[in-house]
Amino acid sequence: MSTSYTIPKTQKAAVVESVGGTLQIKDDYPVKQASELAPGECLVKLEFTGVCHTDLHAAKNDWPVPAKTPLIGGHEGVGHIVAIGEHTQDSPVKVGDRVGIKWLAYSCLECEQCRKGNEQVCVKGKYSGFSVDGTFSQYVVSWVSHVTPIPANLDSAEAASILCAGITVYRAIKHSQTHIGDWIVLPGAGGGLGHLAIQYAVAMGLRVVAVDTGAEKRDLCLKLGAEKWVDFKETKDLVKDIKDATGGAGPHSTIITAASNAAYEQAIDYLRPGGTLMVVSLPGQGKLSCDIFFTVTKAISILGSYVGNRQDAIESLDIAARGKVKCYYTLKPLSALQETYEGLEEGTVVGRVVLDMKQTLVYHFWVFSSRHDS
Amino acid sequence: MSTSYTIPKTQKAAVVESVGGTLQIKDDYPVKQASELAPGECLVKLEFTGVCHTDLHAAKNDWPVPAKTPLIGGHEGVGHIVAIGEHTQDSPVKVGDRVGIKWLAYSCLECEQCRKGNEQVCVKGKYSGFSVDGTFSQYVVSWVSHVTPIPANLDSAEAASILCAGITVYRAIKHSQTHIGDWIVLPGAGGGLGHLAIQYAVAMGLRVVAVDTGAEKRDLCLKLGAEKWVDFKETKDLVKDIKDATGGAGPHSTIITAASNAAYEQAIDYLRPGGTLMVVSLPGQGKLSCDIFFTVTKAISILGSYVGNRQDAIESLDIAARGKVKCYYTLKPLSALQETYEGLEEGTVVGRVVLDMKQTLVYHFWVFSSRHDS
Amino acid sequence: MSTSYTIPKTQKAAVVESVGGTLQIKDDYPVKQASELAPGECLVKLEFTGVCHTDLHAAKNDWPVPAKTPLIGGHEGVGHIVAIGEHTQDSPVKVGDRVGIKWLAYSCLECEQCRKGNEQVCVKGKYSGFSVDGTFSQYVVSWVSHVTPIPANLDSAEAASILCAGITVYRAIKHSQTHIGDWIVLPGAGGGLGHLAIQYAVAMGLRVVAVDTGAEKRDLCLKLGAEKWVDFKETKDLVKDIKDATGGAGPHSTIITAASNAAYEQAIDYLRPGGTLMVVSLPGQGKLSCDIFFTVTKAISILGSYVGNRQDAIESLDIAARGKVKCYYTLKPLSALQETYEGLEEGTVVGRVVLDMKQTLVYHFWVFSSRHDS
Amino acid sequence: MSTSYTIPKTQKAAVVESVGGTLQIKDDYPVKQASELAPGECLVKLEFTGVCHTDLHAAKNDWPVPAKTPLIGGHEGVGHIVAIGEHTQDSPVKVGDRVGIKWLAYSCLECEQCRKGNEQVCVKGKYSGFSVDGTFSQYVVSWVSHVTPIPANLDSAEAASILCAGITVYRAIKHSQTHIGDWIVLPGAGGGLGHLAIQYAVAMGLRVVAVDTGAEKRDLCLKLGAEKWVDFKETKDLVKDIKDATGGAGPHSTIITAASNAAYEQAIDYLRPGGTLMVVSLPGQGKLSCDIFFTVTKAISILGSYVGNRQDAIESLDIAARGKVKCYYTLKPLSALQETYEGLEEGTVVGRVVLDMKQTLVYHFWVFSSRHDS
Repeated sequence: MSTSYTIPKTQKAAVVESVGGTLQIKDDYPVKQASELAPGECLVKLEFTGVCHTDLHAAKNDWPVPAKTPLIGGHEGVGHIVAIGEHTQDSPVKVGDRVGIKWLAYSCLECEQCRKGNEQVCVKGKYSGFSVDGTFSQYVVSWVSHVTPIPANLDSAEAASILCAGITVYRAIKHSQTHIGDWIVLPGAGGGLGHLAIQYAVAMGLRVVAVDTGAEKRDLCLKLGAEKWVDFKETKDLVKDIKDATGGAGPHSTIITAASNAAYEQAIDYLRPGGTLMVVSLPGQGKLSCDIFFTVTKAISILGSYVGNRQDAIESLDIAARGKVKCYYTLKPLSALQETYEGLEEGTVVGRVVLDMKQTLVYHFWVFSSRHDS
Repeated sequence: MSTSYTIPKTQKAAVVESVGGTLQIKDDYPVKQASELAPGECLVKLEFTGVCHTDLHAAKNDWPVPAKTPLIGGHEGVGHIVAIGEHTQDSPVKVGDRVGIKWLAYSCLECEQCRKGNEQVCVKGKYSGFSVDGTFSQYVVSWVSHVTPIPANLDSAEAASILCAGITVYRAIKHSQTHIGDWIVLPGAGGGLGHLAIQYAVAMGLRVVAVDTGAEKRDLCLKLGAEKWVDFKETKDLVKDIKDATGGAGPHSTIITAASNAAYEQAIDYLRPGGTLMVVSLPGQGKLSCDIFFTVTKAISILGSYVGNRQDAIESLDIAARGKVKCYYTLKPLSALQETYEGLEEGTVVGRVVLDMKQTLVYHFWVFSSRHDS
Repeated sequence: MSTSYTIPKTQKAAVVESVGGTLQIKDDYPVKQASELAPGECLVKLEFTGVCHTDLHAAKNDWPVPAKTPLIGGHEGVGHIVAIGEHTQDSPVKVGDRVGIKWLAYSCLECEQCRKGNEQVCVKGKYSGFSVDGTFSQYVVSWVSHVTPIPANLDSAEAASILCAGITVYRAIKHSQTHIGDWIVLPGAGGGLGHLAIQYAVAMGLRVVAVDTGAEKRDLCLKLGAEKWVDFKETKDLVKDIKDATGGAGPHSTIITAASNAAYEQAIDYLRPGGTLMVVSLPGQGKLSCDIFFTVTKAISILGSYVGNRQDAIESLDIAARGKVKCYYTLKPLSALQETYEGLEEGTVVGRVVLDMKQTLVYHFWVFSSRHDS
Repeated sequence: MSTSYTIPKTQKAAVVESVGGTLQIKDDYPVKQASELAPGECLVKLEFTGVCHTDLHAAKNDWPVPAKTPLIGGHEGVGHIVAIGEHTQDSPVKVGDRVGIKWLAYSCLECEQCRKGNEQVCVKGKYSGFSVDGTFSQYVVSWVSHVTPIPANLDSAEAASILCAGITVYRAIKHSQTHIGDWIVLPGAGGGLGHLAIQYAVAMGLRVVAVDTGAEKRDLCLKLGAEKWVDFKETKDLVKDIKDATGGAGPHSTIITAASNAAYEQAIDYLRPGGTLMVVSLPGQGKLSCDIFFTVTKAISILGSYVGNRQDAIESLDIAARGKVKCYYTLKPLSALQETYEGLEEGTVVGRVVLDMKQTLVYHFWVFSSRHDS
């Protein structure tokens, strides 16, 4: 046991007690004490945590793989390590470090997939806010090998959404087999993942076609560096408009975050021969349905990209810390989690929602407007 | 015009006159004369030509892209160059050379895809027996840059089926991101493509699970080097049996030649995390339908692989010429083309059918039994 | 023969008559006429041509492979196609197009290396200003398959130096196995190749340590986006300073343009384990000498990168045309070629020298100062 | 502390007390007890250990990086785990498992290089028989994350030399950017590394040119699957003979185990353009000296390859266990270590020497002759 912090016995936490149950904010949820931590585990006192659509799936338990119950969701947390389990060997972090909690809480680092760097598909993988408790609480138990150090010059609230939305789109772009000057299409470009994807893509020298709807999102996308804009509600021929935007031949890649069949069918149509269709969506149900004939004769690659590994996490945060990528988010208290879920379900959430786990204020404004608009 | 051969005015050819029309064997089909060849074109006098399922699609014209009419099908031809167009520059072949005609008859070698080595998806690509006349005739016009020299120690009849079936599976395995010791599953392993795939995979050091049905195919697959056999008609749980065959974790890759949804769904289930699903089928219609959730969380790559380029053709023939791969085929005369189509449609063709374009005999036996069984 | 231009019988050209001979500016050098062009050849009327250190080697004939004689040097030319050889097939360019002449004038597009996309090492390759006459003349014969279209919004004079210096560093960076956020060290960063390399690297999201000497070069490098500067004349420990500049672990890559042993030895020392040492220099003599022990135990890759292929040329020009890369050059008349060679030999040339082949003015100023400083 | 074995207090061990000191076989060297093991450590009781040229460097301490003293050398050990440190988490092995000890005894699995799969260049790496005590003793302390399970059907003595010589050449071939049908040249093909390299290369479908000298080695190489043989003492033009052996164009790759300048110079000459020169040698001193001009104009890649990581170890053993690779070795007692060092220095050792750590017999014969010759 290694700590110099005072750790309370109980905490505030947002808990779903049973499958399909309602979310309850509890004040007396137990905190695992330093002496109870196994070797390799650490206890993190949270400052901020983002809310992701995945949390909604976990809460509703509508995936083919069941979540634990009772469940504390959340996997975009930032806080400080307040304790590390006794007998932990070779920890890359220490008590007092500011770290991030990402979706992949733990992998064994020993199995075939871990040895090959595919930690996210480790057979012993543990997932924050899904198979282990997550960050919708004041304290969370995680693992020293997988918490991610937060660069000094990156805001904790800013870092939160990088830890899932950022990592996910960063890895997808990194593995999209594109390079400087190539075109990438981002459907949903004005959303939580999309607006980060624009910035990562631009930082790598890619040319972005943003696809979304409405003047507000259009302005945001173009401001963030997208070269072309296609409004999917206004276009009469989405495939043609996207191809035209790229000079006729179609984009080299696209990142599909939606779960609709149409999105995949269209992508096969507008992609340039040899192009890559990056799949990052995690719907409860949903088929990726593509025409076999054109997948083959256009030599398309359809690549499942699952969040990111430790290196992806470090790289995506580093890029944000150097000012290349900024998250647009609204800051709210933990008590606003239920209304946030409702907003995500209705599709009315703009950008990301980040919860202030320090719980001292009632927030309700666009942080971006004051911080990034200058 | 460069030739020392006597070229007849007319020839025997199997022609489909119009969309959906019947196949007619004509004796008086015109032959393009040496003086009519454009720079870059060559005239090839055929010895043998394989029959491929793709020819059936072209004849029926049931693809989303229409074939030319009238059409001479065929894209697995072997013969000698008897003339090369005047003003042809830098030809890599000369009159008298024995060469193969493959699906990709021509690509511009100048466009983005050609510059990147993806000649098969050239925007100006021409396809033998589909957008230009093919090899079901005594003479065929092709292009010096795309005919493939046949290695000296490889039989012409043996080479024929390598030129489409062989190239296709060779390229798919080559791009499957596997290496020595990895497991690859081959559904349809006893068929035309499958039995060649077994041999290419084994030659690269891969471990093969053959999936097909019946004792004859089982024996063939095991003899060709497959380590494991799963009979898809006898198994109670195909996914489990395939995983078990690979020691539990599932194969690193699979090559899907079928057009059924079930084949893709099952592949996502049995593949090892990080595995590759190679798509090589060209159905008239057919959707590649996969569960999005597992495609992402298993980080699966679904890769469209379209026949092969010039280098793939040379490599796949070279491997066959060195005795690593042998084709099982039945030799027939051109007049047997219609019955072969019927057999392909009914699924009763075993191995490949190769037509003897020298037309001097009536063949009707398993060449393999006498040549390869020793 | 295809042309609507009037082509003179003779032209002004800078000729070296024999091995080690002096450079002579001739007024009556013959021009190949449209009717004399072979299929595939084109005649280009030049506007501008850059001068490269390689031209000096060709003129001095001090490489292990001899240049043709008499020789017209030059391989960074920009002009318009005024004629294309009769019977040329499938030309990607037409008379009137503005195109660039690069080092690789011709490759067969048929051999193993061409089929694999390594056109620069084609066994039949022809090199502008070395094995065929180059661009130090008013007209040059080149090949339709290898001249590079100049993007509409890129100045001819600006494009010239991209055609060798730009392509070379662009390809080297592209193949350096680096990605966004990685550190790259550029010795000679203030020179002709180096100042372009900074800009390409920055455009791809790399972090640059510029190594050179003097305040003028330092200011230029930092202005072009280098994050760190090391003056090799002022440092007491170059290896340590470079490692410190990258946070201690050393850079992920370096591009060595020098021919000195020391440069390679130092690179092995300062590179991060797993790093890449890109070799692009073409000295008359010179050994790449590295410590074997550290090359192995640091798992360093030493990669020879030879100019670029057609795709590299198109990409490097496109990036320049979109304003990401600008060349600093001095404009001079053809008559200044000899003094430019002397300057290159003495190391007194700053940036690149571009010759105005329209010959109407006497230039002698830093174009950059008026064009790019705003 | 976890063990059911009886662990003695002292053991037999071959120790070098100080820099440049002599090798002493001690009977009373202390054994670390189970209770003394740190979390993550394990104690292995050895059955066999190979002797590698690297051990000689460690003993002589002639590398630029010093070995520990006193030193027990050896890094090709096979034995059983007899104890695992208390509080060890998530061990992939358990007491009683048969495992191998390789050069890389430990890496942190947390640093940038480990996260990227380059464990061999981990900044905290520990090396068996160099920075920590090795396998020339009856018991050795190692780390559960890095010992390699030995496949059930692989002999312990057979496995020993795979653990360094095998892994090293396997990884080098795996990273040589070659594929089926490519030519690879193996200088020293009849030696310890070379004869294993032939077999791994053949198993992957590569074509091997063996270079060595003498009838015995020639016969061995050809028997193991090399297609061509060049005797470096008999050839009048090594470069020409190697190129001729590959049909004229030269090999696609070569693996250089020697430390002589000449070997590198020749390799640049005989390699095919675009070829790879794999560097695996670890000389006390020695420069890799190549002509810069031809490294660039032939686009050669010179790749330092350092032993192998955990995955390489598992794969190279699996291939051996499936009978694709067999080691030729002589079995000797530990007391023969000094004479083995002398033999290695004089170049008189044929194949590998493996020490029987069970110490019950005096061996002195070619195991191979009786086991593999049938």
